Amino acid sequence: MIHETIFTVEATPFKFGPGAAADAGWELQRLGVRRAFVVMDPRVAELGLAARVLAAIHAVGIETVVYSAVRVEPTLESLQDAVEAARRAGVDGFVALGGGSTIDTAKVANLITSDGGEIMAYVNPPIGEGRKPGGTLRPLLALPTTSGSGSEATTVAILDLPHLGVKTGISHRSLRPAQAIVDPELSATAPASVTAAAGLDVVCHAAESFLARPYTSRPRPTSPQERPPYQGSNPVADVWAAQALRSGGQFLRRAVTDAHDLEARGAMMLAATMAGVGFGSAGVHIPHACAYPIAGLRHDYRAPGYPAERAFVPHGLSVIVTAPAAFRFTYDADPARHEEAARLLTGREERGREALPTALLALMRDVGAPLGLRELGYGAPDLPRLVEGALKQQRLLAVAPLTPSPADLERILRQSLEPA
Amino acid sequence: MIHETIFTVEATPFKFGPGAAADAGWELQRLGVRRAFVVMDPRVAELGLAARVLAAIHAVGIETVVYSAVRVEPTLESLQDAVEAARRAGVDGFVALGGGSTIDTAKVANLITSDGGEIMAYVNPPIGEGRKPGGTLRPLLALPTTSGSGSEATTVAILDLPHLGVKTGISHRSLRPAQAIVDPELSATAPASVTAAAGLDVVCHAAESFLARPYTSRPRPTSPQERPPYQGSNPVADVWAAQALRSGGQFLRRAVTDAHDLEARGAMMLAATMAGVGFGSAGVHIPHACAYPIAGLRHDYRAPGYPAERAFVPHGLSVIVTAPAAFRFTYDADPARHEEAARLLTGREERGREALPTALLALMRDVGAPLGLRELGYGAPDLPRLVEGALKQQRLLAVAPLTPSPADLERILRQSLEPA
Repeated sequence: MIHETIFTVEATPFKFGPGAAADAGWELQRLGVRRAFVVMDPRVAELGLAARVLAAIHAVGIETVVYSAVRVEPTLESLQDAVEAARRAGVDGFVALGGGSTIDTAKVANLITSDGGEIMAYVNPPIGEGRKPGGTLRPLLALPTTSGSGSEATTVAILDLPHLGVKTGISHRSLRPAQAIVDPELSATAPASVTAAAGLDVVCHAAESFLARPYTSRPRPTSPQERPPYQGSNPVADVWAAQALRSGGQFLRRAVTDAHDLEARGAMMLAATMAGVGFGSAGVHIPHACAYPIAGLRHDYRAPGYPAERAFVPHGLSVIVTAPAAFRFTYDADPARHEEAARLLTGREERGREALPTALLALMRDVGAPLGLRELGYGAPDLPRLVEGALKQQRLLAVAPLTPSPADLERILRQSLEPA
Repeated sequence: MIHETIFTVEATPFKFGPGAAADAGWELQRLGVRRAFVVMDPRVAELGLAARVLAAIHAVGIETVVYSAVRVEPTLESLQDAVEAARRAGVDGFVALGGGSTIDTAKVANLITSDGGEIMAYVNPPIGEGRKPGGTLRPLLALPTTSGSGSEATTVAILDLPHLGVKTGISHRSLRPAQAIVDPELSATAPASVTAAAGLDVVCHAAESFLARPYTSRPRPTSPQERPPYQGSNPVADVWAAQALRSGGQFLRRAVTDAHDLEARGAMMLAATMAGVGFGSAGVHIPHACAYPIAGLRHDYRAPGYPAERAFVPHGLSVIVTAPAAFRFTYDADPARHEEAARLLTGREERGREALPTALLALMRDVGAPLGLRELGYGAPDLPRLVEGALKQQRLLAVAPLTPSPADLERILRQSLEPA
C-alpha cells in the first residue's frame, strides 16, 4: 500500500467576541447579499437577541425572510420544508441563527436552492448518491447560539432518516458557511442542560479527532477528488483539537454552572468552533458512530431544557455516553496520545488506560450528564441493534485509531450501559 | 475609551505534504481556471520542480503563461512589469511558485488586472491611498518554495519604494490566495542560507504576533470596516504562533544543516504557513518596523545564497537582527508571555528579561545568521536614519506591546549593532 502523504486544512472565516453579532448586516453586505433567508431556532426566535440580529441586518438595507420551523435533529421532511420556504422567498443569501440543527438546515436549504435536485441525491453513499454540487452556493452567514456543534466551521449537514432508522449526512466543502460570527452573548440564554450537552459534544469532537488514526496511515487516493473529508489526525487539526480539549476541561463546568459567566461561555463557544475546524479535517469516529443509533432508535428519554413534546437524546449526550469505553478500547493504538488527551482535559500529568475515561466521566458527572445508556432508556437487549446501527457509519469508523469489530462495538456499548 | 471586544480569523485553505504540488492542476480546475498566469522565482524556473508543477497543470488541459522576471523584494517598477505581462496574457487565474517576493508579485498582478487602477492607489496610506478592491479577484494558487514569508496565508503584498526610501505594503482580504499548496519537496533545493533567513523570518512572525498587544487593548472601531488587519494578539493567533515557535526551535537548525531532512524542512514549511495565519491576524511590530529601513537604506551587504548582482539584506535577516533587543525592551509589557515565548523556542523552563533574547541569539548563531547590524554594514552614524525609517511604520508599531519612543527605537537599534 502507498500511504497518504497529504492533508488539507480549510476553516470558515470567523469573527469572535461579545457584541460581534452587531456586524451581521455589515458581513452580509460584504458578501453581496441583498435579501437573506434567515433560519432561526424557534426558541431563539422568541428572544431579544433574534430581534437584535435582525435589526443589525435591516439597518444596512438588507431584506430578510425569517424561517423558524427548524426541527432539532433535522429530518428529510423538515429540511424539505425549509428548502421550499427558501425557494418561495427568492433570496440571494442565507443566515443561520441557532445551534447545529439550525445551521445544518440553512446549509441544506442553500444547497438545494442553489444547485437544484433532491436532498437524498446529495446524501453520503450508500444511503444517498453522494452527488456533488456543480458550482458555488450562495453566501451563508452562521451565528451559533450554542457552544456545541461547530457546524459553523464544517462542511457537513447531519440529517435523521427515521424511515430508514439511520442518521447520516451531506458533506461537501461548498456547504461550509462563507462567514461565521461567534458571539458569546448569543449563548447567554442557553439553559445549563443545553450548555452541558453541547459542551460534551465539543469535548468529543476534540478527543475523537485528536485520537483519530494518523492521516499517513490511510492509503493514498488515486486522485485528489477521492481524498475523504475526514482524513485522520494531522498536525494542524491536532493544534485545534488540543486547544478545544484544554478549554473544555478548564471552562465547561463554569459555563454550565453560571450562564452569566461570559468568559467561560465565550471560551466554550470558541472551543466549539476550534473543535469544528479540527474534526472537519481529522474526523470523528467510534463515539459518533454509536451516537447515531443511540439518538435514532426507540427510547423514551426526555432531555431537560429541550422541547418536551417528543423523546429525544441531545446529540452531545448521545456521543459522550460511549466515549469513556470507546477510548478505553482505542488506548492500545497510541497510549501516549490518549494520556496526552487526558492531560489536556485535566491539566495534570495523566497515565494509563483509565486516565481518559476517568477524566471524561468526572466531567460528565460534574455537568450533570447521564453517565450511561441505561439513563437514556437502553438495556442489554438493545445492544445488537445499537451495534448494527453503529456499523452503518463506515465513513466514521474508517478514521478510528483501531477498527472495531462487531464484538468490540458490543463490548464498548455494554460497558457504556452504566459507568464502571 | 471603549475597548475592542472582537477579533477575526481567516486562513487560506491549504494542502500540505510531500508530493502535494502534483495537485496543482486539480486545484486550479476546481477553482474554475482555464488559462493561468504562472509567476515564478527565476531560480526556481530553472529547476525540475518548476517543470513538474507546469506538467501537472497542463495535464488537466489548463494553459499557462509563465512569468519569471520576479524581483527579490519587489519594487513598483517590477510589479508594474508583472501587471503588464499578466494583462497581455489574458488569463483567468494566477499561480505563484516561489518565495514571498513571487507570491506578492502574483497578488499584485491579480489585484490590478482584476480590479483596475494604479498600484500606488492601493498602497497603505499615508504613502498610497489605501484604495479597496471593489469585487473579488481571480483565483490565485500559491505554492511556496521557501519556508519563510507565509505570504501564501496572508492578505499582504510588500513592496519597496526606493525613490521614497520606504518599504510598505498593500493589504486587503481579497489579496489572500484562494488556495495554497505547501509541498516540502519544493523547498529541497533552497540553499542553507536561504532556509536560515526564511526560518528566522518565521520565528519573528511567530514571536512578534505572540507578543503583540492584546486585541482588547485597542479602541473599538466605530464600524467593522475600520477594524485593522493587524488586530493584536488573540486566542486563535496565539495557537498558530505558539506552534510555529515550537517548530522553529525544534526544526530550524536541522532544516538548515541538511537540505534532505524532509521532516525538518516540512515542519518549517508548515510553521511558515501557521505563522502566516497568526501574524495575518495579530500583526508584527518592532522588528518588522526596523527591518524596512535596514533592508532599504544604503549598505553593501551581499547575502550568500541570494542573487549576487546587488547589495541586498534578505528579509529574514533584516527582521531577526533587532528582535533580541526589541523583546528586551517589550519585556515589561508582559514578562510571563515573553518567558513563554522563550520556553516555546527552547523547550525548557525560561525566566527573566534575557531569556528570549538569549534563545533568539543562540538560534541565529547556530544557523549562521549575522548577529548584529554591523555585519550588515551599518554603524552608529546610521542610527538616526534607521530610527526615522522605523517610525514611518506606524501601522506596525500600533500593535507593539509597548509603543517605542524615538529614543527607545534608537536604543533598540544601538543594542542591535552587535550582540550583547
